[in-house]
Amino acid sequence: MSRGLFITFEGGDGSGKTTQAGLLEAWLHGLGRTVVRTREPGGTDVGLEVRELVLHHRGEIAPRAEALLYAADRAHHVATLVRPALARGEVVVQDRYIDSSVAYQGAGRVLDPDEVRRVSEWATEGLRPDLTVLLDLDEDAARARLDAAPRRFDRLEAEASEFHARVRAAYLELAAAEPDRFLVVDATRPVDEISAAVRERVEALL
Amino acid sequence: MSRGLFITFEGGDGSGKTTQAGLLEAWLHGLGRTVVRTREPGGTDVGLEVRELVLHHRGEIAPRAEALLYAADRAHHVATLVRPALARGEVVVQDRYIDSSVAYQGAGRVLDPDEVRRVSEWATEGLRPDLTVLLDLDEDAARARLDAAPRRFDRLEAEASEFHARVRAAYLELAAAEPDRFLVVDATRPVDEISAAVRERVEALL
Repeated sequence: MSRGLFITFEGGDGSGKTTQAGLLEAWLHGLGRTVVRTREPGGTDVGLEVRELVLHHRGEIAPRAEALLYAADRAHHVATLVRPALARGEVVVQDRYIDSSVAYQGAGRVLDPDEVRRVSEWATEGLRPDLTVLLDLDEDAARARLDAAPRRFDRLEAEASEFHARVRAAYLELAAAEPDRFLVVDATRPVDEISAAVRERVEALL
Repeated sequence: MSRGLFITFEGGDGSGKTTQAGLLEAWLHGLGRTVVRTREPGGTDVGLEVRELVLHHRGEIAPRAEALLYAADRAHHVATLVRPALARGEVVVQDRYIDSSVAYQGAGRVLDPDEVRRVSEWATEGLRPDLTVLLDLDEDAARARLDAAPRRFDRLEAEASEFHARVRAAYLELAAAEPDRFLVVDATRPVDEISAAVRERVEALL
């Protein structure tokens, strides 16, 4: 049996995470691997309810409450879906994980990033990805992509561009601190170039 | 302006928390104090959604996810309701708080009680009650009361009597560790004797 592999995609909305995760999944299927495509928040039934609550609640949710709701989604998702798949030797390809919480909640809001990370690490009993692909998009490119796409308006997407800049800086800082885990790709590069770079890193892990 | 006062009631289901909280509220009203009666989980709109999710979800919720959902409810409740009321000099009379999480999640389930407490303390930024009334009921009395009352069946109430015994032991241990904060009352005593004992302790704090 192959060993399980946990790959996460990170980056702002519109950075191409869904496209790249889909291409990676197709390639892994072609190699005969079983792939679990999932995401946080919302990768389980509990997670969908949490996601609905956080994104579409009327009125403010206290910052610590929001961070804890995401952590609850994560705890359930890792315990019931991610860890069992890895134990079966499957490849988990996931849209957003702890780095999202640290970058968005920590750098972007009022909470201490280290505390946010500690809560998530408790939630997941310390499960780390084998590889995290950061699709890095500068502010102007991010805004142009979001403006072009017809999509539902939600709370996170309503934040100002200053917020996006701080999230991006936080992501890049996380990647710099763990170069072995991260692959940082310029998200404005052609789709096939990016997917080739991702495959190269994944191949080394298989 | 009077100083705010934070009073919590703890104990198993059927121990008389609602009755005693109501009597205390009436007495405080008679003294001209503004009282906020509330509870966890479910003291806010966010909390009601969380409570609904935890108690009536089909299928298992991972233990850490459940603890984090309760902590999220608590974070929102403390930030948006309890702290503002205390800042206005009001008396908050609350059904269940951190001690419930430590006793139920920690002692009763698979989680480390100290870790559960740490998550809740992060959620509340360390807000401690001025007084916690523990309505202590031995197992036989608890079972007899629950069997007598027509009530909706929920997950917590479905646990075995061994579970109740561990919760009770955990509560008594918490009370022994903080005798200044806790008032432990035998919940089988007459209602008016219990309420007199509670008033005596509250009076000293006013």
